[in-house]
Amino acid sequence: MLIPQFYIDDIIKNAIKEDINYLDQASAFVIDEDNETTARFVAKADGVLCGIEIALRVFELLDSSCTFSVYKKDGDEIKKGDLIARIHGKTTYLLQGERTALNLLQHLSGVATQTNAAVKAVEGTNVSIADTRKTLPGLRALQKYAVVCGGGKNHRFNLSDAAMLKDNHIDAGGGILATVSKLRSRVGHTVKIEVETRNFEEVKLAVEAGADIIMLDNMTAEEMKQAVEYINGRALTEASGNITLENIKEKALSGIDIISMGSLTHSVTAMDISMQID
Amino acid sequence: MLIPQFYIDDIIKNAIKEDINYLDQASAFVIDEDNETTARFVAKADGVLCGIEIALRVFELLDSSCTFSVYKKDGDEIKKGDLIARIHGKTTYLLQGERTALNLLQHLSGVATQTNAAVKAVEGTNVSIADTRKTLPGLRALQKYAVVCGGGKNHRFNLSDAAMLKDNHIDAGGGILATVSKLRSRVGHTVKIEVETRNFEEVKLAVEAGADIIMLDNMTAEEMKQAVEYINGRALTEASGNITLENIKEKALSGIDIISMGSLTHSVTAMDISMQID
Amino acid sequence: MLIPQFYIDDIIKNAIKEDINYLDQASAFVIDEDNETTARFVAKADGVLCGIEIALRVFELLDSSCTFSVYKKDGDEIKKGDLIARIHGKTTYLLQGERTALNLLQHLSGVATQTNAAVKAVEGTNVSIADTRKTLPGLRALQKYAVVCGGGKNHRFNLSDAAMLKDNHIDAGGGILATVSKLRSRVGHTVKIEVETRNFEEVKLAVEAGADIIMLDNMTAEEMKQAVEYINGRALTEASGNITLENIKEKALSGIDIISMGSLTHSVTAMDISMQID
Amino acid sequence: MLIPQFYIDDIIKNAIKEDINYLDQASAFVIDEDNETTARFVAKADGVLCGIEIALRVFELLDSSCTFSVYKKDGDEIKKGDLIARIHGKTTYLLQGERTALNLLQHLSGVATQTNAAVKAVEGTNVSIADTRKTLPGLRALQKYAVVCGGGKNHRFNLSDAAMLKDNHIDAGGGILATVSKLRSRVGHTVKIEVETRNFEEVKLAVEAGADIIMLDNMTAEEMKQAVEYINGRALTEASGNITLENIKEKALSGIDIISMGSLTHSVTAMDISMQID
Amino acid sequence: MLIPQFYIDDIIKNAIKEDINYLDQASAFVIDEDNETTARFVAKADGVLCGIEIALRVFELLDSSCTFSVYKKDGDEIKKGDLIARIHGKTTYLLQGERTALNLLQHLSGVATQTNAAVKAVEGTNVSIADTRKTLPGLRALQKYAVVCGGGKNHRFNLSDAAMLKDNHIDAGGGILATVSKLRSRVGHTVKIEVETRNFEEVKLAVEAGADIIMLDNMTAEEMKQAVEYINGRALTEASGNITLENIKEKALSGIDIISMGSLTHSVTAMDISMQID
Amino acid sequence: MLIPQFYIDDIIKNAIKEDINYLDQASAFVIDEDNETTARFVAKADGVLCGIEIALRVFELLDSSCTFSVYKKDGDEIKKGDLIARIHGKTTYLLQGERTALNLLQHLSGVATQTNAAVKAVEGTNVSIADTRKTLPGLRALQKYAVVCGGGKNHRFNLSDAAMLKDNHIDAGGGILATVSKLRSRVGHTVKIEVETRNFEEVKLAVEAGADIIMLDNMTAEEMKQAVEYINGRALTEASGNITLENIKEKALSGIDIISMGSLTHSVTAMDISMQID
Repeated sequence: MLIPQFYIDDIIKNAIKEDINYLDQASAFVIDEDNETTARFVAKADGVLCGIEIALRVFELLDSSCTFSVYKKDGDEIKKGDLIARIHGKTTYLLQGERTALNLLQHLSGVATQTNAAVKAVEGTNVSIADTRKTLPGLRALQKYAVVCGGGKNHRFNLSDAAMLKDNHIDAGGGILATVSKLRSRVGHTVKIEVETRNFEEVKLAVEAGADIIMLDNMTAEEMKQAVEYINGRALTEASGNITLENIKEKALSGIDIISMGSLTHSVTAMDISMQID
Repeated sequence: MLIPQFYIDDIIKNAIKEDINYLDQASAFVIDEDNETTARFVAKADGVLCGIEIALRVFELLDSSCTFSVYKKDGDEIKKGDLIARIHGKTTYLLQGERTALNLLQHLSGVATQTNAAVKAVEGTNVSIADTRKTLPGLRALQKYAVVCGGGKNHRFNLSDAAMLKDNHIDAGGGILATVSKLRSRVGHTVKIEVETRNFEEVKLAVEAGADIIMLDNMTAEEMKQAVEYINGRALTEASGNITLENIKEKALSGIDIISMGSLTHSVTAMDISMQID
Repeated sequence: MLIPQFYIDDIIKNAIKEDINYLDQASAFVIDEDNETTARFVAKADGVLCGIEIALRVFELLDSSCTFSVYKKDGDEIKKGDLIARIHGKTTYLLQGERTALNLLQHLSGVATQTNAAVKAVEGTNVSIADTRKTLPGLRALQKYAVVCGGGKNHRFNLSDAAMLKDNHIDAGGGILATVSKLRSRVGHTVKIEVETRNFEEVKLAVEAGADIIMLDNMTAEEMKQAVEYINGRALTEASGNITLENIKEKALSGIDIISMGSLTHSVTAMDISMQID
Repeated sequence: MLIPQFYIDDIIKNAIKEDINYLDQASAFVIDEDNETTARFVAKADGVLCGIEIALRVFELLDSSCTFSVYKKDGDEIKKGDLIARIHGKTTYLLQGERTALNLLQHLSGVATQTNAAVKAVEGTNVSIADTRKTLPGLRALQKYAVVCGGGKNHRFNLSDAAMLKDNHIDAGGGILATVSKLRSRVGHTVKIEVETRNFEEVKLAVEAGADIIMLDNMTAEEMKQAVEYINGRALTEASGNITLENIKEKALSGIDIISMGSLTHSVTAMDISMQID
Repeated sequence: MLIPQFYIDDIIKNAIKEDINYLDQASAFVIDEDNETTARFVAKADGVLCGIEIALRVFELLDSSCTFSVYKKDGDEIKKGDLIARIHGKTTYLLQGERTALNLLQHLSGVATQTNAAVKAVEGTNVSIADTRKTLPGLRALQKYAVVCGGGKNHRFNLSDAAMLKDNHIDAGGGILATVSKLRSRVGHTVKIEVETRNFEEVKLAVEAGADIIMLDNMTAEEMKQAVEYINGRALTEASGNITLENIKEKALSGIDIISMGSLTHSVTAMDISMQID
Repeated sequence: MLIPQFYIDDIIKNAIKEDINYLDQASAFVIDEDNETTARFVAKADGVLCGIEIALRVFELLDSSCTFSVYKKDGDEIKKGDLIARIHGKTTYLLQGERTALNLLQHLSGVATQTNAAVKAVEGTNVSIADTRKTLPGLRALQKYAVVCGGGKNHRFNLSDAAMLKDNHIDAGGGILATVSKLRSRVGHTVKIEVETRNFEEVKLAVEAGADIIMLDNMTAEEMKQAVEYINGRALTEASGNITLENIKEKALSGIDIISMGSLTHSVTAMDISMQID
């Protein structure tokens, strides 16, 4: 796992508390506490897997004696019917953890799967697919990890990592040149400055200002092409705004470096994966 | 708000920390700390609003001196172009809170909107639309609140609230009759018992066992109709499994009481709402 | 354990921090860190045991190498002098955990013991003994678990689980019929509705309103009998208010289903159990 | 309040979450959110009040606009029927906070009341009544505050504050003289050393060792008198073990300085106080 | 403040709990709770102020009714004897907050002061003084803020912000060229890559690899000069290792862009500031 | 370890989160996850070691499979070049934990080393060296532990442990005699009372008042000698204020019992210790 284990544990424990609260009425009063069984995680659709270690960790936190066999790992393309993992442990805990494990696994595999669809849509170009800060509260680290599993790359994690100047910053700072200059004199040297531009005039100013990254916001493929040619490697170029699987290839062919998509994380269709208890 | 304020505050604070971490480089170093401005929340699509008080609370937690005018409230149907709220405060904090506020508002309005679509699809029947435990970790309370705003009802909040007996419980408990009996003798008197059934035989046993709610799992509209007629008010009836906006009306016409849909919360398309800073 | 382990761990860790803070002056500076010893938990009074696994967990969290032998389990009736468990580990940690372990064990066994006294007092009737929400802040889950160990049943865990309509709700809602009707149309289908009644007129209205549970508040045994006969199975019946070990049998004989007692958890006499370090 | 406000707030917020979880079904769906009302806290028994500010804080945290009039303060002796405080605020929040506020107020007033009974029982002597570490997990600070309100004094708060040498420490340390000497050479100069003694021989050794406090454990009044005379002011003297309201005066007359009682906090009878909503 | 208020509040609350625990014995039992007084923060040495808003926030969290007059703000150079701020509030809370406020204020002003000494030592050059990750656990955000107040700049906040390749990474990655290339293909486009170099050969490889920043580790001023000339603007240059106030000017004159110093935050001499209560 | 393990774990986890946040870009994308290596902790200066178990715990929390050999333990005097410990584990986690482990180890060894210098400076006298409450927020327990490792003793941990009366308390309480008397009548019997004195008159009053400890604040060695002779064992004597390694021996020879120094914890020079990864 790229993310520290106990960091994930906090998310899982919070989710389990949310899902169980006091006790699992059905299991507690019906299932014999010593009863053991086996369960299988099986894909019910095609996609890219993400979160299987996290899902299994749910059970480990409930019952440290349970054991696993893992057949598919995060980032793998899986097909409907594929056996992903097998788990053996106390029936009570398998039942208690089932929903939390699936909620995490299905959501993260959903993110990875739709990221991968975008990555495949631009195959043959040099474009990278990136996420945004349009994530679900409390789940950013996991969602960004899922984007990586799907073949995408991470945009900045938070507002401290990199500075993006939008029109409000630029208005307050006295235009692109003055604002970038002021910011450059104050931020640390590891912080890249990205300037959001809406037209060719702004692109020219952003280049002159020495922006590290120039975002082309909601431009047509034609406008993007013109901007990219003008920039000519003096800054990284990023396209954003109204990009769909339908128009992404056309935009990618403009020569842009990065296409960032909020929908990878803000509008996620869960991937269908089931947990079958024997 | 139905949910206690400080409970929501914890989620917001966590989200802000995730989004800002140390400092907002762009605002901190470019915007004059005393500069004030106004922003407007505007619908960019039609839908049902949810989370406007939560979104505004984000700014209040960052800057207790900011002020609001609220034009639309949670549960309102809104149209593209509608002005939802206006906020006035320090520019720095409006920029810092923007992403967190929108992430919450767009997601919750997405849940409310797609819940409402299901509710409208069964208009004219007696069916209630209910959510499930297929929620995103850490966001269950907010998502369930959004379901209510969209006109739906809440299924159990967690495993303590109500007992649902699935095939694994029933196998472990020695069949439907024995399992319900054992459970009834042990759970508290406020806990309803729901039995998941897959065929007519099981429905009959569930009625005999005195289940409070009988879930008809993945049945056809025809099978559901037969079951509902047999049950005849002796238990509440709930349909679940593979229900879409396309087939929901047909299933609703079976006479079922409740249709529960995991997709209301596990596969959410964010509603497009923008925050326009003047 | 019915309650998830890490949930209990949080309570224990908080208690240990409260009890140790920085360091255990006496042990830290007097006992050799490698010194090991054995301790025995012994009953100093008769009662029903609850919390032995929790008490032993205190030591496990302080010293993962300690070992146990457990002779009595939660729910067991124990007699003065009974050996409950034996623990072997580092002397320092046995001394550090002693007070926290006993505080938990004696309190929970106190709850179980006084619950059991009420359960025994109604033997021969069909009445269940239930707890209430009159619990000690932060300890509700443990106290309710102790009630179960003592042979009682749990009333609702919190305000989300079930809806109890008191006079204030009923006044605000326009009477019993209107209030139940309004509530029924809005709450989820897994939520039972209980109506608190103070006289026979209200009982009749509660039945007519379709309440799931009717609470007979502070009624005499005679009034209760009349009410139960009238209700005649159309709702569960619960008695509450001024119920003591002295009058409980008489009230139970009224035919009521449940007797709920706040004193089980709000006025607890610790059970005397000692930890004897060799 | 002696205890920092936000420290208490953490306990209250935790208690409210425990009691409400997601939402208060009855209030949320029945009471108009803008509806306001008044409630009165009224004593239903005689006793010593403790926790009224804490109880009112519950409502303030739920609804910052509510207002109070307070007629009795912590430490006051109150009589059955006394009006303690009046609160005005939104009905929903009064109903939501009621149980949590009463759980705290009744428990803490119970502690103060039974402490006060012990204090009164030794009136006319020079004895102080002290609590112990036999407190309920998570509630130590509040319980110790209640002991002070009842006229008692606080024994050490935790294991860092003061060092108490029990037989296990003394056995490990090579006898009373060696153990106190070793400990004295290592603990900080603000830490008092108390030695637990079971007979006159041990008392003599404790004096010789220079103990700051000598605990006379489970001694008869006669043995205590002999020990106190021997000690003759060279150390503070504390009696502990099997002290009840019946035998406390006799023990106090032995000339002892402090009597500590675990029952003040481990076996608490809630004081009956009601919250009457108009 | 650049850092969100509630983020700082968490640190303050934790510090107050650590310092008070249960109650402030001296104030609680000696000072009349309603007694009010005024206190002044006065510099006892020359330096750069940092943390005055944070220090005053300590009192605001203890007593929301206290009032301030602030005469010096963070980043100001102050002289021995300067009046920094005046605070009026309840005496009890002024005494309770004093130590926590001073601990924060003196430490942060210490960081700002020693940062400023380094900044002044390189005046007349183009060098920026930067901090490192050699910070005190739990205090990184505050310490980095103090560096900014002292005129320094922030290096990366954490391991997510920017990637620094040390010899271990480079060995594992197959040399500088291969490692930078592998990393560049995988990290997000906002992440700068810094390469640590120990000699001129490595500097040349780092330039060829396209590093964004080249760290010259423990080089002499002469070696640095040679490296900077070779790099010639193709990357930012950072010097680190064994830099003191004595040798910093010489190193700065090498033409380097940034000098980073762990001692700014890992070896801090508190600045002497007193709080004088009238 | 004197301090409970999970207490330290909280500090470590917080520090790791602060240092890693989302992921360690460099390690995650360059180092093979299964790659293992060995690292050595080596002293780069002479001093007293403190925190090696804590530093190694950092790695254990990141990678439970790593293994250690420990050659020096807390409290040991170490020389430049000494091998302190060896660790073997996954390279990724060794790199991720390095900074956090060293930040803790270098700071705590710095505290122990400068404490030990003071202890050695008073060798041959009966004086104890004690710390103060001038600690860094969140690190008090660890810093006080380091003082013990350096041969010092701990002053009170917090405001609950012991009562120190300063001039503000004494003014509010009506002079030394009245204030000590009032306080003594109210605090628990385990709480020592220390009185801060500034001249001989106050010393005489403090003795008369029966103070347990008398602090001689900022007195000359001569004044201290006079005070100590007068006190003559009727109270412990503590010197504080402007004590340096230069003047400490002279002050110690006054016959004082304790010298407390804020600089031990508020102005710490990190001890140079490196972690060398093979």
